Amino acid sequence: MRALVVTTPGALALQYVPVPARSGECLVRVSMAGICGTDLQILQGYAGFTGIPGHEFVGVVEAAPDDDAAWIGRRVVGEINIGCGLCEWCRNGEREHCVSRSVVGIRGHDGAFAEFVTLPAANLHDVPDNVDDESAVFVEPLAAACRILVQLTIAEGARAAVLGDGRMGLLVAQVIRTTTPNVTVLGRHEPKLAIARSLGLTAAPSDAPISSASRFDLVVEATGRPEGLRRALEVVRPRGTIVLKSTFHGDSSMQSWPIVVDEVTIVGSRCGPFQPAIRLLASGAVQVKPLISRVMTMERHGEAFDEAKRALKVLFRMQPPG
Amino acid sequence: MRALVVTTPGALALQYVPVPARSGECLVRVSMAGICGTDLQILQGYAGFTGIPGHEFVGVVEAAPDDDAAWIGRRVVGEINIGCGLCEWCRNGEREHCVSRSVVGIRGHDGAFAEFVTLPAANLHDVPDNVDDESAVFVEPLAAACRILVQLTIAEGARAAVLGDGRMGLLVAQVIRTTTPNVTVLGRHEPKLAIARSLGLTAAPSDAPISSASRFDLVVEATGRPEGLRRALEVVRPRGTIVLKSTFHGDSSMQSWPIVVDEVTIVGSRCGPFQPAIRLLASGAVQVKPLISRVMTMERHGEAFDEAKRALKVLFRMQPPG
Repeated sequence: MRALVVTTPGALALQYVPVPARSGECLVRVSMAGICGTDLQILQGYAGFTGIPGHEFVGVVEAAPDDDAAWIGRRVVGEINIGCGLCEWCRNGEREHCVSRSVVGIRGHDGAFAEFVTLPAANLHDVPDNVDDESAVFVEPLAAACRILVQLTIAEGARAAVLGDGRMGLLVAQVIRTTTPNVTVLGRHEPKLAIARSLGLTAAPSDAPISSASRFDLVVEATGRPEGLRRALEVVRPRGTIVLKSTFHGDSSMQSWPIVVDEVTIVGSRCGPFQPAIRLLASGAVQVKPLISRVMTMERHGEAFDEAKRALKVLFRMQPPG
Repeated sequence: MRALVVTTPGALALQYVPVPARSGECLVRVSMAGICGTDLQILQGYAGFTGIPGHEFVGVVEAAPDDDAAWIGRRVVGEINIGCGLCEWCRNGEREHCVSRSVVGIRGHDGAFAEFVTLPAANLHDVPDNVDDESAVFVEPLAAACRILVQLTIAEGARAAVLGDGRMGLLVAQVIRTTTPNVTVLGRHEPKLAIARSLGLTAAPSDAPISSASRFDLVVEATGRPEGLRRALEVVRPRGTIVLKSTFHGDSSMQSWPIVVDEVTIVGSRCGPFQPAIRLLASGAVQVKPLISRVMTMERHGEAFDEAKRALKVLFRMQPPG
């Protein structure tokens, strides 16, 4: 099959490689896959990953172990953490914190920038007919946004801000809007802020002055930049909450005393539940089409990753639309 | 009266100054006062404070406004935040976050390194007879330690670590022990760790290797050092909680992605409730006498502050013991 392969950390090439086969996993023919910030970090050598990246995808199950044969032919998206199945985390159903987990396209498991990817049936979710492939690719990042609602109870009428007008910021803002109407996106890119406004969100430049009285109850940091947390501390109110979504790698310089003096709570937030994300797409409560910048083939991967550095979401189409 | 006065930021002198008089506040004759980490920072110029520092004290009310005359003659400790009384925070009884608050000995209000200090009656708490002056001086920092129990529900049997073997660390560890027996103090000073052990706490060097499986559910960062938060992130378990107590001023360099990947919650924690602290002292559940290094007069302030940099707790005695 054709696949994008990180041959040595940071170096990517389109290659012909064997169709993957993993004992106990289903074989999924990938229809589309999305480029995420983590993929861009992998292309910079993050975590020394080699193999096939890509962890946002939709596809059709083509083969499965006997016990999971019922999945064959179904259109699916997939959770990306694969646990050992034995540890306390896995037994609690929290495989995303299993110490020996693999993560599709990120750690120890080939990913979805390929014609085929494998996954355990336990990781698969059906995609409803009214969620098309372009939208279904967003289930994985949207689930990460939905994680916030599992971690926090957001008071009705709470004033929320999302720092960052990128793909994650615009998903998070829409998810939070399902709980409180007061959501402001603070970003650095006027075209992306315009898209936020077209989605009905309030949007403003990230350095807009925020008076002491108008600081936010909840601030989600989704800038992917080292200064994001520092800015979040400036705009959150005393005893407010900051959710960290950015997995920016590298040192940040910051002062921690405002966390103490203002008694701020900071909550790290990673992968989330797929079912609420699928429901939000199926109901139309979250709109993702305006976030799609380009749909390209893997042949044009150089151009695609380059565009993904600036654009909201770039997708690969692996198979001709069926 | 005699008082220690910060004449310009960072410069301290023993001076004769007028007895303070503030409309609406009670006049307290200070018996003893304790040196805290914030005082040491004030002596380094923190926050440009000038005036009389000192915010941990016990004394006897000597004069009061007519409405508060019932306080006269009572032995008291005092909460240090004085709010505007009008804003939303003050109306909610959370004057410690009032934007225009003054803070005794720290911000806009003279403190207790003096023969007299003034405070509103609303800030005063009676000291029970079985809590002597040396112990009563610890009510204010112990209340800050008790704040953690207001902010968090600590599961029975939770494994807790306190980073830092200083005055705050040893108070926090004793407070947490009232909720779970599994409390380990991690520190850098063998003599202080020995005191922790004498209090019945488990203690170990702060760089002791912590295996992945033995990371802690709860870590309280009370080192007062820039690297404290970084170390806390190393020893907390995924989905664990870090409480920040250090108001270390200055930049820290850190990586924020482990907060996200491990979904850690960080809770800033400052001033706390006096009544639980007084009860813990009165019941003997928290022992503070082993933390007292020296009791000195204000004349020897240079020596006292110097010792406070290394020792657990240095006290000033303002009045001869009665």
